[in-house]
Amino acid sequence: MEHVFLHCTGCGEAPSSIMGLCQACGGAVMPRYRLPPGRLSRATIEARPPLLLSAWAELLPFHDPASLASAGFGEMATPLLPAPRLGRRIGLPRLHLKLDLLLPSLSHKDRPHTAVVAAALEQGGTRIALASSGNGGAALAMHARRAGIEAVVVLGREGAPSPSKLARLRTLGARLEWVEGGLDAANRRVEAGAAAGEWLPATTWTNPFVVEGEKTIGFEIARQTGWRGPDALFLPLGGGAAVVAPWKGLGELQALGLLERMPRLYGAQFAHCAPVVAAFDRGDEAIHPVRPEPSLTSVLMVGNPRIGGPLALRALRGTGGAARAVPDATVLRAMRLLAAEEGIGAEPAGAIALAAALQEAEAGRLPPEAEVVALVCGSAANDPEAVAAMVEGA
Amino acid sequence: MEHVFLHCTGCGEAPSSIMGLCQACGGAVMPRYRLPPGRLSRATIEARPPLLLSAWAELLPFHDPASLASAGFGEMATPLLPAPRLGRRIGLPRLHLKLDLLLPSLSHKDRPHTAVVAAALEQGGTRIALASSGNGGAALAMHARRAGIEAVVVLGREGAPSPSKLARLRTLGARLEWVEGGLDAANRRVEAGAAAGEWLPATTWTNPFVVEGEKTIGFEIARQTGWRGPDALFLPLGGGAAVVAPWKGLGELQALGLLERMPRLYGAQFAHCAPVVAAFDRGDEAIHPVRPEPSLTSVLMVGNPRIGGPLALRALRGTGGAARAVPDATVLRAMRLLAAEEGIGAEPAGAIALAAALQEAEAGRLPPEAEVVALVCGSAANDPEAVAAMVEGA
Repeated sequence: MEHVFLHCTGCGEAPSSIMGLCQACGGAVMPRYRLPPGRLSRATIEARPPLLLSAWAELLPFHDPASLASAGFGEMATPLLPAPRLGRRIGLPRLHLKLDLLLPSLSHKDRPHTAVVAAALEQGGTRIALASSGNGGAALAMHARRAGIEAVVVLGREGAPSPSKLARLRTLGARLEWVEGGLDAANRRVEAGAAAGEWLPATTWTNPFVVEGEKTIGFEIARQTGWRGPDALFLPLGGGAAVVAPWKGLGELQALGLLERMPRLYGAQFAHCAPVVAAFDRGDEAIHPVRPEPSLTSVLMVGNPRIGGPLALRALRGTGGAARAVPDATVLRAMRLLAAEEGIGAEPAGAIALAAALQEAEAGRLPPEAEVVALVCGSAANDPEAVAAMVEGA
Repeated sequence: MEHVFLHCTGCGEAPSSIMGLCQACGGAVMPRYRLPPGRLSRATIEARPPLLLSAWAELLPFHDPASLASAGFGEMATPLLPAPRLGRRIGLPRLHLKLDLLLPSLSHKDRPHTAVVAAALEQGGTRIALASSGNGGAALAMHARRAGIEAVVVLGREGAPSPSKLARLRTLGARLEWVEGGLDAANRRVEAGAAAGEWLPATTWTNPFVVEGEKTIGFEIARQTGWRGPDALFLPLGGGAAVVAPWKGLGELQALGLLERMPRLYGAQFAHCAPVVAAFDRGDEAIHPVRPEPSLTSVLMVGNPRIGGPLALRALRGTGGAARAVPDATVLRAMRLLAAEEGIGAEPAGAIALAAALQEAEAGRLPPEAEVVALVCGSAANDPEAVAAMVEGA
């Protein structure tokens, strides 16, 4: 992998190890790719079967493509679905939905955790741990089992996963550890265990394979729009990775001359937990931590996205997009429209990006001719009875 | 569509209408395809994106490929996953799993109901009805919403769907009709409504698009095995369509010279409801109806597969395969092995084909060098808490 170089997004230095934060400044370490012109062309990509991660081997830091096959289920790229009827309802007739809720774990988390598990296989790891509110844990557990690695999912008693998500973890025999507190406390337990050599951490920013897997969202959208990119791309924003990773992916394609232009990126937070939106509105780079007030869901409720928040702000501001807070009522409207107009059942976090697009269109900040893509990242099947009650309670 | 001809599987006559049973003998009407040599080659198929149904346009009876796009979510072919670790555990190291549980509705039913809804669009239908124990109803509701058609799901109070499946139907706003009795009573209600002009029926055998959609299981396996076909293909057997449809698909490819040989087909029934197995063991062509004794599930519990049973027997006997009854305990073992060895959570009906393969291997009737494919057709997410309890209750 002589074309892969490590880079700290904090201080710009070149760290020596791919795992862990930068020793110099505590920033996130990311791989960068230098490829000779012509090494990766649109035609090369288009000639391949659209496998989820391995279609993009030159832009992923794996030694052996077999690692990805051992950690995956043969998943293919998720559809970029034209949704003209729903689009007309909200004043965006050129709306497209990126259907990551169709992945095996029922959320976009198959992308990062296939990569994380494949990397653990290459590093000889036998146990891997993640603090999770549910979707990440389910994805890690599935891919770890497939690869023959043990998964430990650390859960906070505050904001616990839905019964359906917990049942999935039990079915797959994940080792569950409960801690007092919420996701922050669970993350501290994962870090402590990693420091003590109990497991590899699958934590975003500490484990760069999370972002490397998740960036394929950007790759696929680029390819699926004929390498033009949409005008605007709406993404959910919790810890920041679901904005930063597609931005990194699109940027890599742009640098290689494969993508015509970078779309405006929009990050959507629940109004009950919107520290990145607050910083965006202040014109600030620093995140002021907030205490999440969970309402519809515990997903995306990251009160202190210390590392991912500033990176997400860089992505949103740098592309001419925005961070937006969405009230629960707007998320519910988006969920109902998805079900009624397109037959798609999404959980609240899965509909928040579409809700932000709807809000932006209604505020007159998106012209009707805009080509808009919204990531639909989590299925109603993650919490079916709660979602049914939300959609029915009109 | 001058290359499509109708054929009654009962009397061999050429009926005039594609919808409904044969007016002469009451048999199932199916389309047949006559294509000039070279019109459909392996290379033609391989050059296309692997979209679920539309990759096979010449072998489907639609006037306009746009109908399929209007009814679908851009789904692609499901993976044919090598499962060597699980395979070694059961003495079949060349085991592959056909992962239809990854389809949008969480079962293989997206195939038939995308086709059924696309056909309704072409016929100008605005309402379509199905008697269902859950999975078919969810698939019909999703695809009908996507296409802007109303779905009516008729449910028997005996063998009702899981809370998760019902929640999915509620989320998608399907019109639910409850009838006293089980699936047979629900089917009679659908037929009565169709006769009264209330709706189009999405019933297997009456509506030939069910089989036409479902046969793509066979098409994909042919392509994914390099056009050789496996040695043995294990399929679930309830009303018969999940055996008959892949058999029809494989036969069409064989007739066109695209598939080298027909695999042995095996149909798996729960021991608690195995009328086709009883006929197979008797060497008989007629089905003696049984009263289902539901145990693990209400899925596949068809006590009188009057039309599909004899057709399935023809497929199983004609290919040198078999119909097999599987005890609940063996299905539970298959579910546990899928979860523990491969990270795949399946509902009981989704694991029964694998359970039959396991049983066949242990009885010494499948050699270890056999290339075996088992259809995994329903996700644990259809009933997550019940599946977790089954898998844990070892």
